[in-house]
Amino acid sequence: MKALVLEAQDQGPTLQEREPAPVGPNQVRLRVSAAALNRRDIWIRRGKYPGIKLPIILGSDGCGQVVEAGPGAEEWLGERVICYPAFEWGDDESYQSADFRILGLPDDGTLAEYLTISAENLITAPGHLTDEEAAGLPLAGLTAWRSLVTRGRAKSGDRVLVSGVGGGVALMALQLAVALGAEVYVTSSQSEKVERAISLGARGGVLYTEGDWGAQLREMTPGGFDVVIDGAGGEGFGDLAQALAPGGRLVFYGGTRGKWPRILPQMLFFRQVEILASTMGTPTEFDAMVRFVTEHALKPVVDSVFPLERGAEAFDHLEANGQFGKVVVKLPMEKA
Amino acid sequence: MKALVLEAQDQGPTLQEREPAPVGPNQVRLRVSAAALNRRDIWIRRGKYPGIKLPIILGSDGCGQVVEAGPGAEEWLGERVICYPAFEWGDDESYQSADFRILGLPDDGTLAEYLTISAENLITAPGHLTDEEAAGLPLAGLTAWRSLVTRGRAKSGDRVLVSGVGGGVALMALQLAVALGAEVYVTSSQSEKVERAISLGARGGVLYTEGDWGAQLREMTPGGFDVVIDGAGGEGFGDLAQALAPGGRLVFYGGTRGKWPRILPQMLFFRQVEILASTMGTPTEFDAMVRFVTEHALKPVVDSVFPLERGAEAFDHLEANGQFGKVVVKLPMEKA
Repeated sequence: MKALVLEAQDQGPTLQEREPAPVGPNQVRLRVSAAALNRRDIWIRRGKYPGIKLPIILGSDGCGQVVEAGPGAEEWLGERVICYPAFEWGDDESYQSADFRILGLPDDGTLAEYLTISAENLITAPGHLTDEEAAGLPLAGLTAWRSLVTRGRAKSGDRVLVSGVGGGVALMALQLAVALGAEVYVTSSQSEKVERAISLGARGGVLYTEGDWGAQLREMTPGGFDVVIDGAGGEGFGDLAQALAPGGRLVFYGGTRGKWPRILPQMLFFRQVEILASTMGTPTEFDAMVRFVTEHALKPVVDSVFPLERGAEAFDHLEANGQFGKVVVKLPMEKA
Repeated sequence: MKALVLEAQDQGPTLQEREPAPVGPNQVRLRVSAAALNRRDIWIRRGKYPGIKLPIILGSDGCGQVVEAGPGAEEWLGERVICYPAFEWGDDESYQSADFRILGLPDDGTLAEYLTISAENLITAPGHLTDEEAAGLPLAGLTAWRSLVTRGRAKSGDRVLVSGVGGGVALMALQLAVALGAEVYVTSSQSEKVERAISLGARGGVLYTEGDWGAQLREMTPGGFDVVIDGAGGEGFGDLAQALAPGGRLVFYGGTRGKWPRILPQMLFFRQVEILASTMGTPTEFDAMVRFVTEHALKPVVDSVFPLERGAEAFDHLEANGQFGKVVVKLPMEKA
């Protein structure tokens, strides 16, 4: 099969011919039609991720058809599916087990014509989504759901702020929060992205590149935000904490902009706020998220689609940080 | 009545003669037998507290006997009581209302021979406590209970770390956690305080004045802590966050050592940790805390007892930060 293989840090991946993994009991083989990139893939290419092993087929997200099924998984044959993008969460809902692994390192991932995976990970792809849209859903949707719903406890009527809109998780958080009935605001570095967020249901937004954006936020919602979702960290994290309402939750799932600033605890403790780490999510959260996305007919925003042979360009495009939505790799159709 | 009145910042308070407030419906007058200081009183004397108005009788904590009762409060007459140390928490358990006030500013507090207060605030003083011990319980016990139990969700078998042992809240958090069946560790600047904490049931402790105390903590409990209770903030806060177990909760109720250091979100989010602000607590939490303290026969540690006329010295002593337990002011007995 054709596969995008990362062989060395800071370059590629390159298109190569590989043997698909054999299909065991309770496993299936998908013919992948579309795969999507995540910020994680960029960190891995840069060598800034724990437990890197090379060569590796990256990719945590994909949509495909089940073309082969091992004993016990026959019911899935022919089904169009997406996958819970990880393994071995474990028994405790509040954190993943020591054996937890995300699809696409150390296990080979979705950026190949075929993917062999446990039937446990499968869920039927929502019928209202194209293959490209469905491929963009799993990791971003799961991360956004746990951050917003489980950790942030967002509900109808809440004021929700999503930072750095344009990234896959931020956009899914925005769409989920709007569908929940929250009043949603965004931050971005580009006014065009704020406008696009408004077209997706946001009430407004501020440019974090402007010095007084913290003050602008406080003016926009004088009572503060009940939930803030952040994947950036950096200096702006202090302003996000300042923007919390009493009892508000600031959930962080990433830190592309690095360390938080120094924060004075007195600014926070009277307000009984919470700063909550969140990463990925459980299989139960994944099912709930896909059900919610289906009920509300939410569509992951697709920024761009690259053919398999231009996979390295897809990585470059995501790394350049200009995207609004998921960067998708389209797999070639098999010759009949 | 004799009262310790703060009239100017950075000095006093001084002993003065004052009229006790009249007793209205559903109110009582206590003859205060002992009152206790809190860090808050020091911040107010320094002028570093929101909403200061002078002159003021400070004091959030006291034990006394009900000597007069307004209509509707007659049942309390003659009772030895302590008080819920605040007013108007409001309807939401997760944060206090905008009308919330702590006893002892803006309302006159316990550092006087008499205190007029709503009967709603009263609870019978636990019988196993002396007046001085009972006076040391309310604010510290309430803050520790909400931090440890409500916010930190500490339970039997948890590994709990209490920073800065010696302060009133830290000591109550230690005693409550030991009684809950947790494995408790402490930090302090003095090895004598660590030893005294061990005599109260702590398993061990480290000196945060030693450069490698973060590493010492990790060695002490390789799996990390389920709950960390901190009132200090400052540079050490980063080490406390590092010491959390997966899913662990770092609850902060103060910041005597100032701003947190810069923290890298990547160090935290994979572990699904929580950083939770906590301040004071609800009347329901107060009742639960006093019941628990009674059931487990816990005794607030009294560091020192000053007579009323040496009240300013009690403030100086607490400000010097050398204490281990509550600094109490003993009120003179009325001439019969």
